[in-house]
Amino acid sequence: MINYNPKDWFTFIFRIHKADTVKKLFPMFIAMAIYSAVIAWLELEVFRLSEKDHIRNITAMHGLLGFVISLLLVFRTNTAYDRWWEGRRQWGALVNTSRNLALKLQAMLPAGHPSRQFFRAMIPNFAFALKDHLRGEIHEHSFEGLSPEEKAAVRSGKHVPNQVAGIIMAKVNELYRQQVITGDQLITINAQLESLADVCGACERIKNTPIPFSYSVFLKKFIFFYVMTLPMGYVFGLGYLVIPMVVFIFYVLASLELIAEEIEDPFGKDANDLPTDVMSGNIRKHVQEIL
Amino acid sequence: MINYNPKDWFTFIFRIHKADTVKKLFPMFIAMAIYSAVIAWLELEVFRLSEKDHIRNITAMHGLLGFVISLLLVFRTNTAYDRWWEGRRQWGALVNTSRNLALKLQAMLPAGHPSRQFFRAMIPNFAFALKDHLRGEIHEHSFEGLSPEEKAAVRSGKHVPNQVAGIIMAKVNELYRQQVITGDQLITINAQLESLADVCGACERIKNTPIPFSYSVFLKKFIFFYVMTLPMGYVFGLGYLVIPMVVFIFYVLASLELIAEEIEDPFGKDANDLPTDVMSGNIRKHVQEIL
Amino acid sequence: MINYNPKDWFTFIFRIHKADTVKKLFPMFIAMAIYSAVIAWLELEVFRLSEKDHIRNITAMHGLLGFVISLLLVFRTNTAYDRWWEGRRQWGALVNTSRNLALKLQAMLPAGHPSRQFFRAMIPNFAFALKDHLRGEIHEHSFEGLSPEEKAAVRSGKHVPNQVAGIIMAKVNELYRQQVITGDQLITINAQLESLADVCGACERIKNTPIPFSYSVFLKKFIFFYVMTLPMGYVFGLGYLVIPMVVFIFYVLASLELIAEEIEDPFGKDANDLPTDVMSGNIRKHVQEIL
Amino acid sequence: MINYNPKDWFTFIFRIHKADTVKKLFPMFIAMAIYSAVIAWLELEVFRLSEKDHIRNITAMHGLLGFVISLLLVFRTNTAYDRWWEGRRQWGALVNTSRNLALKLQAMLPAGHPSRQFFRAMIPNFAFALKDHLRGEIHEHSFEGLSPEEKAAVRSGKHVPNQVAGIIMAKVNELYRQQVITGDQLITINAQLESLADVCGACERIKNTPIPFSYSVFLKKFIFFYVMTLPMGYVFGLGYLVIPMVVFIFYVLASLELIAEEIEDPFGKDANDLPTDVMSGNIRKHVQEIL
Amino acid sequence: MINYNPKDWFTFIFRIHKADTVKKLFPMFIAMAIYSAVIAWLELEVFRLSEKDHIRNITAMHGLLGFVISLLLVFRTNTAYDRWWEGRRQWGALVNTSRNLALKLQAMLPAGHPSRQFFRAMIPNFAFALKDHLRGEIHEHSFEGLSPEEKAAVRSGKHVPNQVAGIIMAKVNELYRQQVITGDQLITINAQLESLADVCGACERIKNTPIPFSYSVFLKKFIFFYVMTLPMGYVFGLGYLVIPMVVFIFYVLASLELIAEEIEDPFGKDANDLPTDVMSGNIRKHVQEIL
Repeated sequence: MINYNPKDWFTFIFRIHKADTVKKLFPMFIAMAIYSAVIAWLELEVFRLSEKDHIRNITAMHGLLGFVISLLLVFRTNTAYDRWWEGRRQWGALVNTSRNLALKLQAMLPAGHPSRQFFRAMIPNFAFALKDHLRGEIHEHSFEGLSPEEKAAVRSGKHVPNQVAGIIMAKVNELYRQQVITGDQLITINAQLESLADVCGACERIKNTPIPFSYSVFLKKFIFFYVMTLPMGYVFGLGYLVIPMVVFIFYVLASLELIAEEIEDPFGKDANDLPTDVMSGNIRKHVQEIL
Repeated sequence: MINYNPKDWFTFIFRIHKADTVKKLFPMFIAMAIYSAVIAWLELEVFRLSEKDHIRNITAMHGLLGFVISLLLVFRTNTAYDRWWEGRRQWGALVNTSRNLALKLQAMLPAGHPSRQFFRAMIPNFAFALKDHLRGEIHEHSFEGLSPEEKAAVRSGKHVPNQVAGIIMAKVNELYRQQVITGDQLITINAQLESLADVCGACERIKNTPIPFSYSVFLKKFIFFYVMTLPMGYVFGLGYLVIPMVVFIFYVLASLELIAEEIEDPFGKDANDLPTDVMSGNIRKHVQEIL
Repeated sequence: MINYNPKDWFTFIFRIHKADTVKKLFPMFIAMAIYSAVIAWLELEVFRLSEKDHIRNITAMHGLLGFVISLLLVFRTNTAYDRWWEGRRQWGALVNTSRNLALKLQAMLPAGHPSRQFFRAMIPNFAFALKDHLRGEIHEHSFEGLSPEEKAAVRSGKHVPNQVAGIIMAKVNELYRQQVITGDQLITINAQLESLADVCGACERIKNTPIPFSYSVFLKKFIFFYVMTLPMGYVFGLGYLVIPMVVFIFYVLASLELIAEEIEDPFGKDANDLPTDVMSGNIRKHVQEIL
Repeated sequence: MINYNPKDWFTFIFRIHKADTVKKLFPMFIAMAIYSAVIAWLELEVFRLSEKDHIRNITAMHGLLGFVISLLLVFRTNTAYDRWWEGRRQWGALVNTSRNLALKLQAMLPAGHPSRQFFRAMIPNFAFALKDHLRGEIHEHSFEGLSPEEKAAVRSGKHVPNQVAGIIMAKVNELYRQQVITGDQLITINAQLESLADVCGACERIKNTPIPFSYSVFLKKFIFFYVMTLPMGYVFGLGYLVIPMVVFIFYVLASLELIAEEIEDPFGKDANDLPTDVMSGNIRKHVQEIL
Repeated sequence: MINYNPKDWFTFIFRIHKADTVKKLFPMFIAMAIYSAVIAWLELEVFRLSEKDHIRNITAMHGLLGFVISLLLVFRTNTAYDRWWEGRRQWGALVNTSRNLALKLQAMLPAGHPSRQFFRAMIPNFAFALKDHLRGEIHEHSFEGLSPEEKAAVRSGKHVPNQVAGIIMAKVNELYRQQVITGDQLITINAQLESLADVCGACERIKNTPIPFSYSVFLKKFIFFYVMTLPMGYVFGLGYLVIPMVVFIFYVLASLELIAEEIEDPFGKDANDLPTDVMSGNIRKHVQEIL
């Protein structure tokens, strides 16, 4: 994620940032400009279509459908943003869970009990495991304080966040059986323990479920034909000015689809993705402050 | 569900996928084209309506109602998508519940206790039972580790997911009575146990409740009359070009309704439906990794 | 509720179902047609208003306000649909609660304990009590297994669902005092017990709270004046064609308000209402399968 | 709140109810009519602006901004309605909590225990305390069964609903210490006890937080300038007909803002406010039926 | 936050408040006016473009994109408002948690127990710690009743709200170990204890996550180019009247973006921010009334 000052308009308007859609779409702008120029040249110079030609009124279709396309793009924007924001909320839930788990264990465990050291390492390990898991990666060096058997569990090719959650869950039940924590305390710590797998499942759901295939196909076909037919009608009123107009409209419509595609999977390393590296680090820092 | 790369525009625009609405609507495109051609031919050649004929201004109605029809289709899209997404969330909840149940039981049950084997088979059985139940099917071979009485319960024509949930619930209470798990542990495992029936009920609700009949009728009548009257007015400005325009507008409006119909029941085997087969398999795989 | 196949377009478009707004609004269509015809006749034949008369441009107002009226009707549609859907979700919650209560009691109660018979009858009784209560009716014959005192409680004119919930709650606490169920089991069954009154309260809320009076008045006045002024301006462009146009626009706007009115109270016996009879029956069937 | 039959169109359209925005805005209608007449008279008779004067085309601005103003008013309507509905849901939660508390206590407390009388009076007292508190009033006579010390607590100028909740909470813990209710029962009654303060806090939040100041200012300025500039351009097309048109558009835009203002604080005694008096009375009635 | 009477239209329309966007945008209004005047002067006087020049029809683009820009600004408004409102809800949750914690402890702790004094000071301390933390500040004097070690913990540069939550959590567990509160009571107080860190995490999430960078850039670029090209086409119809029109449209579009920027981080000291100072004070007042 890019940290930025949302009030700095000047830079936003005139600088082309690497995550800017202007940069990504630039080759397409050239293509659209050439296409529009060819259409304009054909209609104006080659076929010399008169003002009364029927093709002029194709603009009526663009007017009627302008509403639908706008609403669909806003629907697309909304659903993509909702995923991004839900991903953020899930990681926020992970932060809260990690802190509450640390706060409760710090209050429950006798001072100096060796399991403190265990949870101090293992709670943040879950966040690191999840972050890498969502990127399809495994980085053993990001874990702390694993015993040899635990390392083997992580390396075994099994689902890593599940393994880490299992290790934590087993440890808590062991402490309960050893009567280090009482049954009442086990009950109060239960919500945090199950939240680990819940956050993991929710993030996997966001990552693995793009909007339905049919919508994605339909929206792309719709944008394509809408923009490709634009110059045909507007050339009569605008002449060669149709070129910048088509490029600008294409910029607006395609940007919305492009940004939506980028943010609907928020766990990668794109410029707009959530800062899961930073957040995992913060979880480690705060848990170590507490425990 | 179709796995696809949402960033691959080229294929989306030019290939006609089998789940594409272009394919499904193709016969209707032909019909609409013929209908528009006939209207155009009648108005232009047979009746030779003059530019001043009142029917020309029927386009005013299409302009006024263009807002309403767009907003209604987006409302339709939103509600259908919400069901699809809620169905996905419910299955995500089932994944989380299955994992948490396995994680907790793995931590609670003594190593090598025979009930481990039981839950290892029975937790995933619930997912398979639900998947088939939502499709109105029963596949006995998809269950694992059923005792003869349990097989009879499944075969009895009763509600299968309820039977499986009942078997799990009874087993947990038996372990509690045998003091294999304590009362505190029973309380911590309760949320997962009741989540099984909750997910099942929510999926049945989504499956059995299409949007109210009146909206469905109204929307179809509205689209039909809107599109059928389109060529009457626009023929004056567009001549025979009214044919592709009507077909394209019909494509946009009907696609939205068609996709909404398809995704609002997301548990079948359509191209856009949720991959419940894969998800049930993953639940089995992960539960077996844990337990 | 009407069970229908949402993919059967043909029937939807050409058949007039009894719940169809076309049927309900038909007398109004006639009235609107006559009104428009009179306006057209007055402007065209009696006053012979010229093309330049100012009244022609009143259409500008319809254009400006077309957006507001569309958005308001969609707002209306959304809120009405949300109530209908929330009503459905509440009944879904009742289904889940009834099943979970049955599943848990089946696992907790000793085989053959007489209270099994009690819950087998009483859990479904709550659904029947609620269904009738939401319609302002009491049908004693729909209850099963009531003792004479319980019958008296139901007949006493008191709030029937509360009485049934009270009977269930008292029985569970009696079993707890008799140590048939333990304290831990009481805690795990608590959520289901309180859900009964919660579902009842939520359904009453939906039933007793239509959208604020001011919106309802405002929306009806707005639709009325909007439609009544429509023919005045459009008669110049459309001549007598203004009659079908006004009727069609009236059909669209009034249908939306009419459907919203019908579905915002979803517990009656209208064609679009929720099938609470069927759902109560299913609850009885499933509870009896389980317990 | 006004009870009304939403299907009675005739009365709605032709009667002017006291809560109707037509009544409240009537003086403004006169003012707008005079203002529009003066503008029309100046442009048409005094300055005799020609058809080609640039001011005629100011209507283009109204077209462009018509979208924005409509969408903003719908945003305003949505947020105001959401508060109103959330207020209703919170009072619904209070109804459910009161009922569940009564149902549980009826099942837990020994028959004839004196605390039954206490809760029978005190649970409804909370609803009355909250209702008056949200209106900034204190009506001692609406409480039942207060001991002298409790009366003093209510009279002390402290936060009354908190005091009542505190009295209930203290009583329950006293019963727990006296072992009239067990620890398991205390746990099952906990959710209802904390719901009291939660409902109170949520209602205070709705009451004390209007939409941000900047939006309120911006929206009023926007409506004002939009409507004031309306007659300038439209006078050319509409002549003196601009007067009713401006008044009607003003009616629509101002009504939406006015209704939003009224319903966003739903706890007062306005015609559209929630019937908290009736609801408090119902809570007392139902609690006394149960306990 | 500014307390205001939302029904006072007159002041809103004619007074320029310091938080008013009119004030903030005033320099930009001047710039836009000069820019529009130069464009108008160039087109009308220098190049003397004829009525038929193609640039006149660039207005078609503004019409088509008017939908998109309006919808996007409403999307922006919605997401910013949602954050502001969620921030308010989180602080409402903190109020409820603090009250419920005080109510429960008052009922649980023996009269005159020294820990009462502790919680009386420490519960409000959490609200003050959170308020300052969200502004990146630490004000030691706003805490009450800290022991020297607690003061050191706060001063240590660690996460202050976490430290305060940790102190409270440790105290409660100490009371539990001393059997001042029982296990059942510990369970009933658990939700409030974990809510402290949950509220803190949610507020940090809102504060640290502006809308994705790409949207922010795209929206600013879009508004800029949309407004800059506005005078080019409209100058033909409006002459020098294009100046106030462009300024007014700029006022509307930029105000929406500006207000959204201001309210999406609601924990600062801006005029529209939440009154966290007042709310912290109220929490202290109410907790001290109760405990």
